[in-house]
Amino acid sequence: MKAVVIEDSELTVAERPDPEPGSGEVLVRVRGAGVNGADMLQRRGRYPAPPGSPQDIPGLELAGEVVGRGPGAERFAEGDRVAAIVGGGGQAELCTVHERGVMPVPEPLDWPAAGGFTEVFTTAHDALFTQAGLRAGERLLVHGGAGGVGTAAVQLARAAGARVTATVRREEARPEVERLGASAIGPEGFGEHGPFDVILELVGAPNLADNLGALATEGRIVVIGIGAGAKAELNLAKLLGTRGRIMGSTLRARPLEEKALAMRRVERHVLPLVESGALEVPVAETFSLDDAERAYDSFAEGGKIGKIVIVP
Amino acid sequence: MKAVVIEDSELTVAERPDPEPGSGEVLVRVRGAGVNGADMLQRRGRYPAPPGSPQDIPGLELAGEVVGRGPGAERFAEGDRVAAIVGGGGQAELCTVHERGVMPVPEPLDWPAAGGFTEVFTTAHDALFTQAGLRAGERLLVHGGAGGVGTAAVQLARAAGARVTATVRREEARPEVERLGASAIGPEGFGEHGPFDVILELVGAPNLADNLGALATEGRIVVIGIGAGAKAELNLAKLLGTRGRIMGSTLRARPLEEKALAMRRVERHVLPLVESGALEVPVAETFSLDDAERAYDSFAEGGKIGKIVIVP
Repeated sequence: MKAVVIEDSELTVAERPDPEPGSGEVLVRVRGAGVNGADMLQRRGRYPAPPGSPQDIPGLELAGEVVGRGPGAERFAEGDRVAAIVGGGGQAELCTVHERGVMPVPEPLDWPAAGGFTEVFTTAHDALFTQAGLRAGERLLVHGGAGGVGTAAVQLARAAGARVTATVRREEARPEVERLGASAIGPEGFGEHGPFDVILELVGAPNLADNLGALATEGRIVVIGIGAGAKAELNLAKLLGTRGRIMGSTLRARPLEEKALAMRRVERHVLPLVESGALEVPVAETFSLDDAERAYDSFAEGGKIGKIVIVP
Repeated sequence: MKAVVIEDSELTVAERPDPEPGSGEVLVRVRGAGVNGADMLQRRGRYPAPPGSPQDIPGLELAGEVVGRGPGAERFAEGDRVAAIVGGGGQAELCTVHERGVMPVPEPLDWPAAGGFTEVFTTAHDALFTQAGLRAGERLLVHGGAGGVGTAAVQLARAAGARVTATVRREEARPEVERLGASAIGPEGFGEHGPFDVILELVGAPNLADNLGALATEGRIVVIGIGAGAKAELNLAKLLGTRGRIMGSTLRARPLEEKALAMRRVERHVLPLVESGALEVPVAETFSLDDAERAYDSFAEGGKIGKIVIVP
């Protein structure tokens, strides 16, 4: 099979042996595989794939048809349209994944949307609700509202009755984020728009001091993205003053059972909203597997609304 | 009545008008009033009393007899032995407090122990269980294990089946902390004793970097004390790596209903352990009201096991 390959920080497209589904696994013919921030880090050698995942093939999410099943895999039949979260290996023509890490693809989603859905919506849902406990009526600030996780978070929070503000660097992108349900603002001076009950940090350390200043009593800051830097100064007196919480979260490093649990929650609480059309999966651009490097460059360039998806 | 008074960072003992119990309040003749870290901060002008509390009389906890009741106060009768948490005003001969902020004094506690019980045990119980969700079998690190909150936390965690390590600066104090149920270590190099599921930070910012390094996956750091400093550098990459949480918590700034809720939990889950003798309230020293300054100096000097209590 053909696959995107990262070796020594070099991105190429190369032939790799077809993977075989092991016990409880399905083999998926990949039709869409989203590009994520973690891929950028992996390309720079800073975010190795977890043990048990292909070390050289990136890609955390994919959608496609089931074309094979390992021993004991019974949740899906051959031909089923499925989407999955994997520790790596999604950006290839074929990928194996444990059936508990797979969910059905709702009717309204085409392959690019399905391929860019699971990681961002599961990440956003887990961060907002399972980690931060966001409730109806609360005020949410999303830093990086125009990205994949950002647009998912804006929509999920809106659907849950929260009042959403999102920082969006590019002014041209703000109307689209507003259309998805947020009040879109620039990243400068965001603190004046608080206080916020929950802050979803997708950018990094530079926002932390102002996040603390903009936090409501018993507010929660969930840090998922640190692309703009990891080292911040933390004023504990402010944290005590608001009785605030700072939480770090990643999906990728979790064991199968935790990812599977997060995906079951998405199946139950998010897929119905996708089916009803209440949530959409904005796709910015698609690229063929051979054009993977351009897909990565486009992601790194930033400033687009929605997902960049590789369609093998 | 006579009271400890802090004005312009000057501590004196002075006459103040007797307080009158308002609606739902009881008037308590104070027999013991613990000295806490917050009093030290208030003396230095850095921790003003919350609105509605006496601004010039310190003291967050007290025990004594009910000697009067305001309209609608029905939980306690005159003569009842009670203990209370207040926003301020405890270090005086008389103090008013809302009856929901009062709990009965268990039989085994004498007045000094009762006067030094509520704030530290409620703070420790809230931090360990309500905030950090400490569970049996988890590993807890208590920074500042020889102090009032520290000795309460060690005992509560031990009673709940957690495995407890405590840092204790003074080597002479370690055997006593070990007797209460912790493995006592020096503050240097504590990170080598991890990983810990929960870290109770009673010292301050200087520990934060090593706390993060010693945190188990999904670990929680609860920061209550910042006497040694508030500004820390935070490496968000480490927080993401462990999916950790840093929580700030204070009891004093909370509204009555939240304090009352925390005290109800102590009534239900802690008082039975005091009654059975499973928990003790170590009292280091007692001072008369006239000797309040010496009590404060003794607290500031540190290095003692258990509470310093003013007995009016």
